Amino acid sequence: MIVIGIDPGLARVGFGVIKEERGKVTALEYGCIETGCELRCSERLLEIYNALSELFGKYEADCVAVEKLFFSRNTTTALSVSEARGIILLAAEQRAIPITEFTPNQIKQAVTGSGRADKRQMQDMIRRLLSLDKIPRPDDAADGLSIALCHIHMMR
Amino acid sequence: MIVIGIDPGLARVGFGVIKEERGKVTALEYGCIETGCELRCSERLLEIYNALSELFGKYEADCVAVEKLFFSRNTTTALSVSEARGIILLAAEQRAIPITEFTPNQIKQAVTGSGRADKRQMQDMIRRLLSLDKIPRPDDAADGLSIALCHIHMMR
Repeated sequence: MIVIGIDPGLARVGFGVIKEERGKVTALEYGCIETGCELRCSERLLEIYNALSELFGKYEADCVAVEKLFFSRNTTTALSVSEARGIILLAAEQRAIPITEFTPNQIKQAVTGSGRADKRQMQDMIRRLLSLDKIPRPDDAADGLSIALCHIHMMR
Repeated sequence: MIVIGIDPGLARVGFGVIKEERGKVTALEYGCIETGCELRCSERLLEIYNALSELFGKYEADCVAVEKLFFSRNTTTALSVSEARGIILLAAEQRAIPITEFTPNQIKQAVTGSGRADKRQMQDMIRRLLSLDKIPRPDDAADGLSIALCHIHMMR
């Protein structure tokens, strides 16, 4: 099973591609799509769309797992993150890849066993679960991996 | 000049295509893209994307004018409308059509001269400005037309 985890955003979209085989999880690829703040919003959305369409085309993923929006006090941010989320859902649907969505708490709970884990605990757990030498960078990439791990945990 | 006005939403996307020539405005087409509530969110977004890509391809529009989100008390709605807005911006950007955005108040002000106009006043004004026999239906289509009219008014 191949799962692509996506951490939505307009400036940065974190992603992590994980393969599970006979109970063993491996990171195939992870990273962050960054869009420049000098671009118009629609240009940034197009960049995200193009990069994700390519990523989704590269792997025969069984699922795209996306973080559900935690409604922050910063409503302007929430709206632009939602615009990016729309793009992510579209790109997955166009390739007929099933989509699952998880809240930040579900992701923390699945990865660390606690819904209150901090960023450092999350990142260390991701490193251990995926047998990586170092904590994945940037943070957004680690977030993408954590969402994919959450999906795999939920399927078990 | 051809302007396509779009009233964003997940269940219903209103649109209106207006041509301005020598100060005269004419409605070329208007309507509403509806998506069924039995569909998953990503399926609805794909339907909106396909319909808008077709619409944007049909006219050599000089501009796509989109309503800016008025932050409603219903935050769940605001987030799903934003996801649809992301799709609208993407479809326009893919065809390199310039995008303008207006708030509900700007639209009311431009169409009726008052930011406090009610729906009925707006619709009647749209009918008169476009020399239509009847008020355009459904309401979403009238909203699409009003956004296109707002853009034309702002350009003058």
